[in-house]
Amino acid sequence: MVAFCLTAEINAQQTNASDSTMLRKIYSEALTNGKSYSWLDHLSNKIGGRLSGSSNAQKAVEYTKAQLEELGLDKVWLQPVMVPKWTRGTPEYAYVSTSTGGTKNVNICALGGSIATKKGGLKARVVEVSSFEELEELGEEIIKGKIVFYNRPMQADLISTFSAYGGCVNQRYSGAQEAAKYGAAGVIVRSMNLRLDDLPHTGSMSYGNIKPKDRIPAAAISTNDAEYLSSALALDPSLEFYYTMSCQQFPDAQSYNVIGEITGSEFPNEIIIVGGHLDSWDLGDGAHDDGAGVVQSMEVLRLFKESGIQPKRTLRVVLFMNEENGLRGARKYAQVAQQKNERHVFALESDAGGFTPRGFSFDCDKDNFVQIQSWKPLFKPYLIHYFEQGGSGADVGPLKGENVVLAGLRPDSQRYFDHHHAANDTFEHVNKRELELGAATMTSLVYLMDTYGIVKSPQKTKIKG
Amino acid sequence: MVAFCLTAEINAQQTNASDSTMLRKIYSEALTNGKSYSWLDHLSNKIGGRLSGSSNAQKAVEYTKAQLEELGLDKVWLQPVMVPKWTRGTPEYAYVSTSTGGTKNVNICALGGSIATKKGGLKARVVEVSSFEELEELGEEIIKGKIVFYNRPMQADLISTFSAYGGCVNQRYSGAQEAAKYGAAGVIVRSMNLRLDDLPHTGSMSYGNIKPKDRIPAAAISTNDAEYLSSALALDPSLEFYYTMSCQQFPDAQSYNVIGEITGSEFPNEIIIVGGHLDSWDLGDGAHDDGAGVVQSMEVLRLFKESGIQPKRTLRVVLFMNEENGLRGARKYAQVAQQKNERHVFALESDAGGFTPRGFSFDCDKDNFVQIQSWKPLFKPYLIHYFEQGGSGADVGPLKGENVVLAGLRPDSQRYFDHHHAANDTFEHVNKRELELGAATMTSLVYLMDTYGIVKSPQKTKIKG
Repeated sequence: MVAFCLTAEINAQQTNASDSTMLRKIYSEALTNGKSYSWLDHLSNKIGGRLSGSSNAQKAVEYTKAQLEELGLDKVWLQPVMVPKWTRGTPEYAYVSTSTGGTKNVNICALGGSIATKKGGLKARVVEVSSFEELEELGEEIIKGKIVFYNRPMQADLISTFSAYGGCVNQRYSGAQEAAKYGAAGVIVRSMNLRLDDLPHTGSMSYGNIKPKDRIPAAAISTNDAEYLSSALALDPSLEFYYTMSCQQFPDAQSYNVIGEITGSEFPNEIIIVGGHLDSWDLGDGAHDDGAGVVQSMEVLRLFKESGIQPKRTLRVVLFMNEENGLRGARKYAQVAQQKNERHVFALESDAGGFTPRGFSFDCDKDNFVQIQSWKPLFKPYLIHYFEQGGSGADVGPLKGENVVLAGLRPDSQRYFDHHHAANDTFEHVNKRELELGAATMTSLVYLMDTYGIVKSPQKTKIKG
Repeated sequence: MVAFCLTAEINAQQTNASDSTMLRKIYSEALTNGKSYSWLDHLSNKIGGRLSGSSNAQKAVEYTKAQLEELGLDKVWLQPVMVPKWTRGTPEYAYVSTSTGGTKNVNICALGGSIATKKGGLKARVVEVSSFEELEELGEEIIKGKIVFYNRPMQADLISTFSAYGGCVNQRYSGAQEAAKYGAAGVIVRSMNLRLDDLPHTGSMSYGNIKPKDRIPAAAISTNDAEYLSSALALDPSLEFYYTMSCQQFPDAQSYNVIGEITGSEFPNEIIIVGGHLDSWDLGDGAHDDGAGVVQSMEVLRLFKESGIQPKRTLRVVLFMNEENGLRGARKYAQVAQQKNERHVFALESDAGGFTPRGFSFDCDKDNFVQIQSWKPLFKPYLIHYFEQGGSGADVGPLKGENVVLAGLRPDSQRYFDHHHAANDTFEHVNKRELELGAATMTSLVYLMDTYGIVKSPQKTKIKG
């Protein structure tokens, strides 16, 4: 332990004037000649939402591959992967029908992976719950034949909106499978949105072990309409809810991860990757989730080339397919890496929106974290202060193992869930400078990781020796 | 010195569990039951732009006074102050007229304080410069009778956009008086905006010692049109620029600072103030500049009341009038404070937009800064990391003196100049949570300042003793 602390101290001393100069160069290049914003403009406005298996997803594969080829990397290739193909079909439609005969339209959208309603739609009474425990208490007698309305809001007083999301998202992901156990006819889930507005937010859901014949349609409802429905139910418990959805699951489709590489000059077998996911939900154009991460990751390699940095280790950008509803691209990438016995030392993901970067979360051992912390002062001029141990990203997750540091960019999270998986996740809500600062921050960390390498654990080092 | 360092250490130990609990309470209340956003909605959407001397400014005085009265403070009052009254008149109009007879409309706005063009407008050839030095080199021979076009852009690679603003704003503030010395007919200034768009950004300007008969009209041009004009000039140096403006300066008008107070329980004569400025430019609704600072400052006192904190020192909210084009409210407040021999110990301003707070800039001596730094760990859960010595705010500036700590809230600055003084400084660009986090952060600092007091300098202590 002492030895590794010492390593970190030596490294701390090594982060000298030249590192500081290099970071300044990286940030200046990103902010004055950055390409990420124009790439994102194309992905968002010329292509649009990129749901796995869609023609837009394929266009995004082709566009990003062509752009990477223009950067003059050592290698650019497509990695084939079969992905789920689900489509929304015709626009969803829903209303509340009161016991006195009134109706009010409400804003819903199918959750990704949901089955359609029967032709003609589903109309039933509604039971509002805020947890699976409450659902269990009510039991089949009360639930059967009804629509379960999950209405536990995101907790506003958590500072990290991702924590607030984590506290609610089981309603969306598992709400249908839980309600189906008690014979519910369908589920409606309050959108994962901290703001009160009219936009429903989609996202993945799973039927778990529920047999196909017992599956029930699942939709998200806007936060404004969740508030309305809840208060309407309080006054009129026998109101009915109607919705119709025509979503459909198709056989798996051929798709690709897009990969580009600069081969390392000293340790070509030590691989560093930066990535985001190329697929997105279909309601918006996926600018924040995760167009931003895609173009920032591409920009990392461009900034290396443009700043004249020849990485010692092999530096790859990986644009993962199908993070949103399957994670097939990430699994495929890890599987191929294992088959080829590739040695990944560092994997960084950007998948939390193109907002002002605040720092990183690191999934690594203590020795590496000590070394990483020693680099923190280099980031102070750029207001990057958040270096914490924690999660990384869904796409780099499957690479987890010994002697690999995983990390996730952590941008300011306050506005993320205003847009997440909704029709307003669009280009005009990404600020150019915030996006570029993220790319520069990622590049700076990758530069330091490449320059100093990771701290190898003694066991592994011994085995290798 | 040692004694004061020790004080800071003792205070550091004093920031105990109860402080941490109180901060948590403050943030939770702000994020779950905050009033700042609905106040801002009213100021922005029900009232709108609040230029000094306008009826909207008067409405804002009356509205905020009434709202403060509802908070159950110990005192609420208006402090009279005479303010400049300048009006934009009918909308400005401008075009470029090429030597081959073509015309192109461009987006301009009068700078605050500018004279009007002659009836029928001003048409003249254009000289582009990027600095006063360049202007001087060209001299009267080249400048006389022409329109000077200041086109030095904000520097994109500075991380603080306020630094980039600081490096350009002399063109706007003093451009007319400098150009007038060489007989220019008028000036056009590139908008203080880091983004390329079509919105001109107004702001204050001064004629300095230029006699009324020699004054020339001054306008801002959008960044897109500045780019256009520059490239058009390169191809066609004899093009002409036309603009017409009907702005007007009126006699000073009666207005007010709005003040509310909770009287201190132990040290009522030690005054702490929090404030922002109630006036704004007229193009947008002044939501970020400085509606945000106004409602956050009001929220500080509400959060004290709501969280059951009885301040030991007297806590005042001051909503200053006329920061934008005169600073009369701030000067009046400081003048009255001096006349009454009031002892201000801490003055905090929020006037940098309602974006996610990053920390504070402190204008104080070293001993106080050491004490303040000792509080920093309390803010870590709220991602508040920026505690630096530097400027504070224009409105609290006149209170500068011995034994007073001045401070300014420092929100994320990346988007600020996209909106600053332009038609898109509007309510929909303020995020509720970001605004509320700012208010909670200010309240937390005020709570600690009130709890521990400032570190008094030995000289002053001796005199007082």
